[in-house]
Amino acid sequence: MLLKFTKMHGLGNDFMVVDLVTQHFAFRPEFVRQLSDRQFGIGFDQLLIVEPPSNPEVDFRYRIFNADGSEVEQCGNGARCFARFVHDVRLTAKNPIKVETSSGIIELNIEQDGDVVVNMGAARFSPSDLPFNAEQAERYQVQVPLNDGNYTAEFGAVSMGNPHCVMVVDDIHSELVNQLGPQLEGHEQFPKRVNAGFMQIKNRNEMDLRVYERGAGWTLACGTGACAAVAVAHKWGLVDDEVKVNLPGGALTIRWDGEGDVIMKGPVVRVFDGRLQV
Amino acid sequence: MLLKFTKMHGLGNDFMVVDLVTQHFAFRPEFVRQLSDRQFGIGFDQLLIVEPPSNPEVDFRYRIFNADGSEVEQCGNGARCFARFVHDVRLTAKNPIKVETSSGIIELNIEQDGDVVVNMGAARFSPSDLPFNAEQAERYQVQVPLNDGNYTAEFGAVSMGNPHCVMVVDDIHSELVNQLGPQLEGHEQFPKRVNAGFMQIKNRNEMDLRVYERGAGWTLACGTGACAAVAVAHKWGLVDDEVKVNLPGGALTIRWDGEGDVIMKGPVVRVFDGRLQV
Repeated sequence: MLLKFTKMHGLGNDFMVVDLVTQHFAFRPEFVRQLSDRQFGIGFDQLLIVEPPSNPEVDFRYRIFNADGSEVEQCGNGARCFARFVHDVRLTAKNPIKVETSSGIIELNIEQDGDVVVNMGAARFSPSDLPFNAEQAERYQVQVPLNDGNYTAEFGAVSMGNPHCVMVVDDIHSELVNQLGPQLEGHEQFPKRVNAGFMQIKNRNEMDLRVYERGAGWTLACGTGACAAVAVAHKWGLVDDEVKVNLPGGALTIRWDGEGDVIMKGPVVRVFDGRLQV
Repeated sequence: MLLKFTKMHGLGNDFMVVDLVTQHFAFRPEFVRQLSDRQFGIGFDQLLIVEPPSNPEVDFRYRIFNADGSEVEQCGNGARCFARFVHDVRLTAKNPIKVETSSGIIELNIEQDGDVVVNMGAARFSPSDLPFNAEQAERYQVQVPLNDGNYTAEFGAVSMGNPHCVMVVDDIHSELVNQLGPQLEGHEQFPKRVNAGFMQIKNRNEMDLRVYERGAGWTLACGTGACAAVAVAHKWGLVDDEVKVNLPGGALTIRWDGEGDVIMKGPVVRVFDGRLQV
């Protein structure tokens, strides 16, 4: 059969999006790995699947697979693409839409400018949520071995459904940051490892951010990382309730008032539509 | 308008193939660069364009653009994809087909097993053809500075429309080869640089090959590099007239009797068909 798909990206985090509401197909992990290959396949960071909902309170079920074929819970850039996709291919005309994911129900809203707004849920600073082996996570210091000796890294640690630690630095492109990324990602006090974010704060409403992601290294854009960075910066009193976060792949706007859910707004690009013999 | 394209690969050397016989579009270099991006665009090594022929003796005009938007003369993996494409989309039923390129007319033949056979033209050992600043190219020694001192590299240099130097080594994955690749590619006696090939000969009919390509580094497969390697090995009396060449992306069969043209046979994969808003 010919399987229709759409290639999309959010800040360079790129996706193969497949409608399994009107098409029927089962993706085996080995096939996902093949398709994700950028020379031999289609090439993508994640595969996003649109499925019918399992209960009438939501509009769709949203599943995410990594390039290695494993299923994951959360992807902010993917959620924005998902929302635009179901509108573009006319699977729904509703706005906002409610979507069930393996980590709960999320609400997605398409704005007039085409950007998508995603409720990313609560920022949780409890060490057990990350997990983080420490008595508190809001502001913490660890010793990190670098090439030229030990370094005292001060960070805030927060869960956005996945674990993050975030530091303020003078220059996100420095050699110090290049070394700190992998050292923090694998630090022994984070038993499930951690996404390590480095923010250079420009003013109370704008920052530059680089994120060293668990298992992926430096990435173009990390939606949950942007939320985590604003949550930590807000907790430390460095930013207001709305912050533009400049990532290597582009900018997101994050809103958080210090309580409640974190709201992410950002762009989506539909690159092309494809058909694949399966 | 919606521009139709097909994504193909030959041994992992991957292509966006566009029919500009039935569609009308002009690719600007900046747009080619955008499209070639693997996160933000379609992602490919080269763009292959099918155009109507400029004279009645040939079937098509075949143009090749690198990911940086520059036009190139020759691509063996691309030529195989080109032949399969024009048959698949029924632009012709002829077999073989004659195709004009910026470096001359080539003949392409689709075999019963789906592989494509390409006449790659003559192997030219004249130093001025490469260019190579030396009195002869068939067997030559240069001093190459490596991390732990100078190394005497013995190679054959040959033009397949583009310049190649090829060495016999014990292990194509050795640290020695890793260092020799970039050193030979930029060696001062090759004023336009050179593709550096390293062959590990298994028997008179099979070799393993890695090629450090000009401006691209180590690649999965280099069609002209496979032809050049067999030409040098044949000239040195190490192989027979038909040789299976195992590259990291897969295998090619090269035929050369020591005179005349070099013939390359290899596989082609059509990955998917796409449509792009332009």
